Amino acid sequence: VERIKNLAILGVGLLGGSIGLAVRSKLSDCRIVGYGHRKETLAKALEIGAIDEAFESPGEAVRGADLVILCTPVGILGKMIAAIEPQLKPDAIVTDVGSTKRSVVAAGGRLKRFVGSHPMAGSEKRGVEFARTDLFDQALCILTPTDTTDTAALAQVEAFWQALGMRVTQLSPDQHDRLLADVSHLPHAIAAALVAMQEDQALPLAGKGFLDATRIAGGDGALWRDILQDNRDSLKAALARLRGELEKLEAMLDPTHAKELADWLDQAAHRREALLQEKLREVTPD
Amino acid sequence: VERIKNLAILGVGLLGGSIGLAVRSKLSDCRIVGYGHRKETLAKALEIGAIDEAFESPGEAVRGADLVILCTPVGILGKMIAAIEPQLKPDAIVTDVGSTKRSVVAAGGRLKRFVGSHPMAGSEKRGVEFARTDLFDQALCILTPTDTTDTAALAQVEAFWQALGMRVTQLSPDQHDRLLADVSHLPHAIAAALVAMQEDQALPLAGKGFLDATRIAGGDGALWRDILQDNRDSLKAALARLRGELEKLEAMLDPTHAKELADWLDQAAHRREALLQEKLREVTPD
Repeated sequence: VERIKNLAILGVGLLGGSIGLAVRSKLSDCRIVGYGHRKETLAKALEIGAIDEAFESPGEAVRGADLVILCTPVGILGKMIAAIEPQLKPDAIVTDVGSTKRSVVAAGGRLKRFVGSHPMAGSEKRGVEFARTDLFDQALCILTPTDTTDTAALAQVEAFWQALGMRVTQLSPDQHDRLLADVSHLPHAIAAALVAMQEDQALPLAGKGFLDATRIAGGDGALWRDILQDNRDSLKAALARLRGELEKLEAMLDPTHAKELADWLDQAAHRREALLQEKLREVTPD
Repeated sequence: VERIKNLAILGVGLLGGSIGLAVRSKLSDCRIVGYGHRKETLAKALEIGAIDEAFESPGEAVRGADLVILCTPVGILGKMIAAIEPQLKPDAIVTDVGSTKRSVVAAGGRLKRFVGSHPMAGSEKRGVEFARTDLFDQALCILTPTDTTDTAALAQVEAFWQALGMRVTQLSPDQHDRLLADVSHLPHAIAAALVAMQEDQALPLAGKGFLDATRIAGGDGALWRDILQDNRDSLKAALARLRGELEKLEAMLDPTHAKELADWLDQAAHRREALLQEKLREVTPD
């Protein structure tokens, strides 16, 4: 794969800023330009060294770029693709960091060399001030190629995320959105609902368990609104399956089902523990 | 309030063992005896200094005790109260650490001086090997007196938990069980359901957010079975309210409700953040 010499990051928040810092630290001789719609964000990104040059228009930012990474909220990725298309170099590769993939991959179909990416890193924090060079270290990046994806561009994007320290896997956009609804979008929605349903007098009794269980509800509302609405069919299917599980639970609350309920709870505990151990192994490979 | 000279801890696991260690460190001249149904647990409790003497029968353990603390699982608290009743000193005070309060307070009604307690400390870990002297520091203890509770015993139990570093509040057994269903038992049930509903191929895609959201599902199945079944009417009411909240969410997934969904998510994020800040203030008072 070829070396990226000119990188354009559109949207220099937590993810975009961290990409800039990681590229600076891990790829030599790569010029990094950034677009942002707020001047203060661009100034901060320049200050911490996440970008070399700042642009207030996406079209200007992508001129001359070998690789363009869309880091704007999911809800405007389609618009962003339309806006940059006329300004791209003919062989420019475009990818994104969106948490949903069907809609952006469909929008990217109008470009010659688009590859959908979902680097699974970040936090409930938002903004370039939380950007970190090591945000992507050991984390998983899901690529979502289709039948029409340029294979050289796919290899290039894969090598890029690997150079930033990520493990890379591939799923179809459909599979991605369905599975992420289950393990990410549904838990987020549930965490918000668990907070929203509380009476004022109940919250002072909440302990560390409640705070942990609802930590993911701390994210930015508009960002998550985009994700949940964009993936609403998968999220509704996940909600339906959760409801089914809760109906099973409700039936097991009758004391005649004592053993079944204990087994169900133990199975969940063991399954989570196995997942935790697997994650720890990934982070500290032999 | 009088000084406790003889303390009996029935059930020397994480909570019982930590009470022993905390009493040893914070109350002078208090003799601590412990009951456990497993010899190895008793030996370990003796070894770490959580108890001075071990008994394999609850009746023998409570003889001579000024204060008896029931630390056995919620499901057998009623049986334990019946077993110790004939052996108690006439003025002995009995309390417990159960996560549900209506059933144990009803069972304690047969004793002269029973006070329901719920020290909100612990973790998903289980066993005396995880006992800690500081487990109760700054944590909240809910006392659940009724019209018939001995007021001197109530004051004594309150002073005891305060001596261990706890903040103490009071609720009726009904209020306790209703509010704890909302902030503790429901989140636990939901965490288990979120794990249980996952397909095998989805779990490898789960990130830190999923692990945090489901941490409380890591507890012991039989212990939590007791709690969820004992408090099943409150839990069902909490589940019904969560379902209502999820129906609201589902309606807001339609793009025509973009602002409402973002507001709902932001409100949950702000409410959780306010709770977190309140908790941090409690732990580090001025």
